[in-house]
Amino acid sequence: MLRWLTSGESHGRSLVGIIEGLPAEVRLTTEMVQDALARRRLGYGRGARMKFEKDQVRLLAGVRHGLTLGGPLTIEVGNTEWPKWEKVMSADPVDPDELEGLARNAPLTRPRPGHADYTGMQKYGFDEARPVLERASARETAMRVALGSAAQSFLSDLGITTVSHTTAIGSVEIPEDAETPSAREVERLDADPLRCTDPETSRRMVAEVDDAHKAGETLGGVVEVVVDGLPPGLGSFVHWDRRLDARLAGALMGIQAIKGVEVGDGFRTVRRRGSQAHDEIEPEGAGVRRTTNRAGGIEGGMSIGTPLRVRAGMKPIATVPRALRTVDTASGEPTTAHHQRSDVCAVPAAGVVAEAMVSLVIAQAVLEKFGGDSLPEVRRNLQSYLASLPEL
Amino acid sequence: MLRWLTSGESHGRSLVGIIEGLPAEVRLTTEMVQDALARRRLGYGRGARMKFEKDQVRLLAGVRHGLTLGGPLTIEVGNTEWPKWEKVMSADPVDPDELEGLARNAPLTRPRPGHADYTGMQKYGFDEARPVLERASARETAMRVALGSAAQSFLSDLGITTVSHTTAIGSVEIPEDAETPSAREVERLDADPLRCTDPETSRRMVAEVDDAHKAGETLGGVVEVVVDGLPPGLGSFVHWDRRLDARLAGALMGIQAIKGVEVGDGFRTVRRRGSQAHDEIEPEGAGVRRTTNRAGGIEGGMSIGTPLRVRAGMKPIATVPRALRTVDTASGEPTTAHHQRSDVCAVPAAGVVAEAMVSLVIAQAVLEKFGGDSLPEVRRNLQSYLASLPEL
Amino acid sequence: MLRWLTSGESHGRSLVGIIEGLPAEVRLTTEMVQDALARRRLGYGRGARMKFEKDQVRLLAGVRHGLTLGGPLTIEVGNTEWPKWEKVMSADPVDPDELEGLARNAPLTRPRPGHADYTGMQKYGFDEARPVLERASARETAMRVALGSAAQSFLSDLGITTVSHTTAIGSVEIPEDAETPSAREVERLDADPLRCTDPETSRRMVAEVDDAHKAGETLGGVVEVVVDGLPPGLGSFVHWDRRLDARLAGALMGIQAIKGVEVGDGFRTVRRRGSQAHDEIEPEGAGVRRTTNRAGGIEGGMSIGTPLRVRAGMKPIATVPRALRTVDTASGEPTTAHHQRSDVCAVPAAGVVAEAMVSLVIAQAVLEKFGGDSLPEVRRNLQSYLASLPEL
Amino acid sequence: MLRWLTSGESHGRSLVGIIEGLPAEVRLTTEMVQDALARRRLGYGRGARMKFEKDQVRLLAGVRHGLTLGGPLTIEVGNTEWPKWEKVMSADPVDPDELEGLARNAPLTRPRPGHADYTGMQKYGFDEARPVLERASARETAMRVALGSAAQSFLSDLGITTVSHTTAIGSVEIPEDAETPSAREVERLDADPLRCTDPETSRRMVAEVDDAHKAGETLGGVVEVVVDGLPPGLGSFVHWDRRLDARLAGALMGIQAIKGVEVGDGFRTVRRRGSQAHDEIEPEGAGVRRTTNRAGGIEGGMSIGTPLRVRAGMKPIATVPRALRTVDTASGEPTTAHHQRSDVCAVPAAGVVAEAMVSLVIAQAVLEKFGGDSLPEVRRNLQSYLASLPEL
Repeated sequence: MLRWLTSGESHGRSLVGIIEGLPAEVRLTTEMVQDALARRRLGYGRGARMKFEKDQVRLLAGVRHGLTLGGPLTIEVGNTEWPKWEKVMSADPVDPDELEGLARNAPLTRPRPGHADYTGMQKYGFDEARPVLERASARETAMRVALGSAAQSFLSDLGITTVSHTTAIGSVEIPEDAETPSAREVERLDADPLRCTDPETSRRMVAEVDDAHKAGETLGGVVEVVVDGLPPGLGSFVHWDRRLDARLAGALMGIQAIKGVEVGDGFRTVRRRGSQAHDEIEPEGAGVRRTTNRAGGIEGGMSIGTPLRVRAGMKPIATVPRALRTVDTASGEPTTAHHQRSDVCAVPAAGVVAEAMVSLVIAQAVLEKFGGDSLPEVRRNLQSYLASLPEL
Repeated sequence: MLRWLTSGESHGRSLVGIIEGLPAEVRLTTEMVQDALARRRLGYGRGARMKFEKDQVRLLAGVRHGLTLGGPLTIEVGNTEWPKWEKVMSADPVDPDELEGLARNAPLTRPRPGHADYTGMQKYGFDEARPVLERASARETAMRVALGSAAQSFLSDLGITTVSHTTAIGSVEIPEDAETPSAREVERLDADPLRCTDPETSRRMVAEVDDAHKAGETLGGVVEVVVDGLPPGLGSFVHWDRRLDARLAGALMGIQAIKGVEVGDGFRTVRRRGSQAHDEIEPEGAGVRRTTNRAGGIEGGMSIGTPLRVRAGMKPIATVPRALRTVDTASGEPTTAHHQRSDVCAVPAAGVVAEAMVSLVIAQAVLEKFGGDSLPEVRRNLQSYLASLPEL
Repeated sequence: MLRWLTSGESHGRSLVGIIEGLPAEVRLTTEMVQDALARRRLGYGRGARMKFEKDQVRLLAGVRHGLTLGGPLTIEVGNTEWPKWEKVMSADPVDPDELEGLARNAPLTRPRPGHADYTGMQKYGFDEARPVLERASARETAMRVALGSAAQSFLSDLGITTVSHTTAIGSVEIPEDAETPSAREVERLDADPLRCTDPETSRRMVAEVDDAHKAGETLGGVVEVVVDGLPPGLGSFVHWDRRLDARLAGALMGIQAIKGVEVGDGFRTVRRRGSQAHDEIEPEGAGVRRTTNRAGGIEGGMSIGTPLRVRAGMKPIATVPRALRTVDTASGEPTTAHHQRSDVCAVPAAGVVAEAMVSLVIAQAVLEKFGGDSLPEVRRNLQSYLASLPEL
Repeated sequence: MLRWLTSGESHGRSLVGIIEGLPAEVRLTTEMVQDALARRRLGYGRGARMKFEKDQVRLLAGVRHGLTLGGPLTIEVGNTEWPKWEKVMSADPVDPDELEGLARNAPLTRPRPGHADYTGMQKYGFDEARPVLERASARETAMRVALGSAAQSFLSDLGITTVSHTTAIGSVEIPEDAETPSAREVERLDADPLRCTDPETSRRMVAEVDDAHKAGETLGGVVEVVVDGLPPGLGSFVHWDRRLDARLAGALMGIQAIKGVEVGDGFRTVRRRGSQAHDEIEPEGAGVRRTTNRAGGIEGGMSIGTPLRVRAGMKPIATVPRALRTVDTASGEPTTAHHQRSDVCAVPAAGVVAEAMVSLVIAQAVLEKFGGDSLPEVRRNLQSYLASLPEL
């Protein structure tokens, strides 16, 4: 059983994550985590914060000499801006006089539509939004990427590889017949300004971002995660919450700003007729092959051995330069929401976060099916399973 | 904490579900469960089985004199066809000679594309698909509806009501500007052949079903679940797996044949620009109101107090009369998949199942926020929370 | 992951349990469950109910032709006395006039000390104890035994066997140096009136029960569960809730009336000095052996490969013929608690229940370490692990 | 739902814990955590490490200006000895030449009986014990105490207070009739060298420790945790794993070196006859009172409103100066286990750890019954429940 917790406020001292259940002997170094985090900062249309947000990674527990130990793994990502926030976000009480003068400490009473601000204040009984937005912020996803990098290392040692790419920015989409990239193409995709597999579409996406920027607007989009090398039979049909698609959907919808999730051809398949909607089976060598991959590699809640494809749709960034109407909760008067940052679009980063979540879910499913306390034991059980699959 | 398990094979003796964590004093009777199950059999385009599949409901535990007791609730839905299957699906061993002659017992070695058959055989090491399809079948959703009816009764006593409707059958969709129905309209919706809120669209959907039927085809579609009366603050932004949207997405994608899930305007919002994508806030009376409901009642992973709207997209039924290509696993030869049933479209039923899953998730979130061991205690905690929300 | 839920009221229609996560291909028949339940009715000092309480077992789901299917397994144990209780415990509302005259339906307002009665009424807001005692009753343990029999079948196919025996009845204890029985001795133990391994002690226990009976008293005692054939390494030291001893302690203390739990020599080891408290290691053949088994087969929260020994101490039955003082909650007046049954001692039965709980926990730990969806797959992974253990 | 993970190696960079589910507005400061940790270092018979092991506490996330924020709380306890271990326990790979010369890095191939060493190596496939003992070490309990201090702060704001005391060291026990201390006496107890409530027994315990020290021996003992101020109805009888006693037993047995757990009078009650084993009920004012507290405040798996009493028995420290026999796993030759530390007895510290675990479990049970996202909301729900309890 793989379980994990993340913590940390956007402007707090650090983000911390603990993941429990990873087998021993998985490769992990500070640099591997840093590289994963660097990929999250990619993408055309990001604001200034992404530039200075160098991630200070420390592996606090669970790894020794580059290999996991079998115990809980802990990653810390320090906040490089901490000195500026030390008082405002101090864990311990601070002299009220000292706080008084700090602009950063002013109560945030203009909750932003599209964010957790207003309801978060209600739920937790806060009289301003600071305690809400500090945790609700997408900064938290850095820790998911960090933990996901450990899951990815584990999976890659089993021959399971993951990549994501951007299939839409606002209304600009890749062509329906664009080829699905494989995990081998990660470098090419990361080099594209929007992590888009189709150069022509990428150019149109860049133009769309520029246009939105000029208009004081923000953009959403769609990312797809592709997983190669999965054995058949991860997840299960026997109970709804063991289905791989259910878990992937939960993990993706659990990313900030995601409003839609699809497996395989998703809503496109929904509109097809039955004879055009499934992946027929034909003999190939000692096994079978699928003539298509409309199901995205999942049937009956299980991986079927073809590439897994899942998509997540992200709404436009809710902090819109062209400010949205809201209410000042201190005065009850109508006002507009502040917008502190200038990102137009965070979709390429969402792809990297989605990769992390997918990797964590797949790692969990692998451990459920194959057990094992060390990488060699997991691999041995996986291989003996594959060897046991009957030829036709 | 609300948790539940369902069990049962499609042609087994009965389906059984246990749900643990429901408070005491919730109203529940055999008839209430039967009524819920009857709604699941609705819908134009269903085959013969729906007709004779009268559900034999027994409340085996957890209810007394029409009120829950606080302990685990158990519902059994008997299989009216059991005498025909008693030997084939017997729990105890049966004399092989007796089984020999039974056509129903013949090994199923032509796995159906789009179903769990092939991978299920691999995963569990079966040499035929019977043990897979018996559990993977959507017959299992009857138990989700049964358990969901208990959750719905609980919620309705708190003023939270749920309904579903069909927004698309194949490529026939309701108009973008169609009004979202409320839970008060459940009778009207159930009376429509496809549980569609728009009569004109409903007529086109009927025609689409007829056309597909003639063509030996099957159809999928989209359902929307609407929940009225939610307090703000169910779910949370503090950890991904506590987000209400994440849990709803998992619960909906965990329904057989669902390939896409949306919250609120979902993928439509994804294509909008920021200024048109969120729900602005304005003062109203002592509180606030939203000018729109694009978010579908969820911001920051929490219910915000507006109607919740989630959608699930169902692929066309995989047992296509125009049979799909597959392989006979006994011989290794190419063949076609059998199709035993004649449903063209199960979308209206999927709506009822989706209602059940949504109700179970919401009930869980209510209990998490408000605690309580009896309905009066939950209600008291809910009301004191609502009373504590500050006026602006 | 193995999870299970039990349900049912003491005088309700039936007890039902669902267990999810058992692999496919595990042997299970109605008779096997009945045999397990018959063992629970054993023991000198039981009252009349045990005699007529023939258990009507039905396997409702998850098994076919004597083998599990991999999906959730459901067992029902019917209440043979149901006709007498049909009205009083009816799930559906009953005409109040009909109920009026039924003695069995009279409100129970004299909560019994030592039972859940009084606090249960407070917690759930009941004005009488019927809804509490119906679920709190030890009758529920029949379902644990039923589910445990499936776990035991699974384990025994892996060479892991379980037995329990009575080490104390009241103040009568087996000698400190009595030999620990092995699971091969189950028949001999079951044949003893108190399931005691030492005939001389057994005779004294019988006398103690007789004496208590005459005195209008009840007795508790201690049972020990022994598990043979465990591989080393079940459970783990890496996190407290993965420790095998922690889980076993929770499972045993979770049995009605248990007030103490020990692993190995338990509190006896606590009183020893360090040099006499542990199990030294010495080379033996290609491996090692322990010179003693004080730890009861668990070190660092893991099975170490020697026989597992855990003990549970049961308090005397709280329904004491010599009635205890209580309060009538209807009148507020002091009174005495009724006692409807005449058991003096239920310790031998508690041993069988403890076996069941231990088997369920061990099965869970086996699946966690070895994964596997079918018995052959679990066995293969277990064997390759054992083969991988280095010779010294 | 309250959940938490701890991490960290004994000589690693730091211990880290994350706890998720604590309500907002709970008081917590660095100093409060440090004070809790200082209590864990108490006790006569501890070795040198306890002296220099000043705990460097940092609250990394989840608290602001002395109050929790509602999101995950993260505590780090730094290792003051880290510079000495930086190479040996480095997360990142270290030049093998550099490691070569380090005595601290020498492979540990003489597994210590009574520790996780030998089986840990088997389970995880390690060829030496370092990766095992680093995590299995009781150093990890510092993080439980740190997290427990947050739970204790939460509970104390609800009027629930906790204390522990030592009831036995080796064979020296407090008198059976010694009065149970209340949580108000924590200072007096902490001032006693062995945290024993009876001065005369304490003196004998000191003598026992001195004697064992001279003899090259180690000692175990028993601690009792007392909780005052509990409302009735935490936990439940409706399912075994919701019983408060089951969860407490799991939490206590999950502490390193614990081999026995008792609730209330535990095994003493087991030996009593029924009429002397339970807590009779009599009217008192508008409610009831118990004439005794043999059950330790738990009946039917629920708190009943009297002081909770649970005991944990700790085996003697397994690293015995008078070294135990073992095998060198590198050579296969018999040898003796090294002993690096000189503690004779860690029982008083185990009491503090037990307090922490009990507090965490109680906090979980409180949140389950009362829900609530902020301290005021939990308190409001608790108080309205208490107000709803009927007078007799």
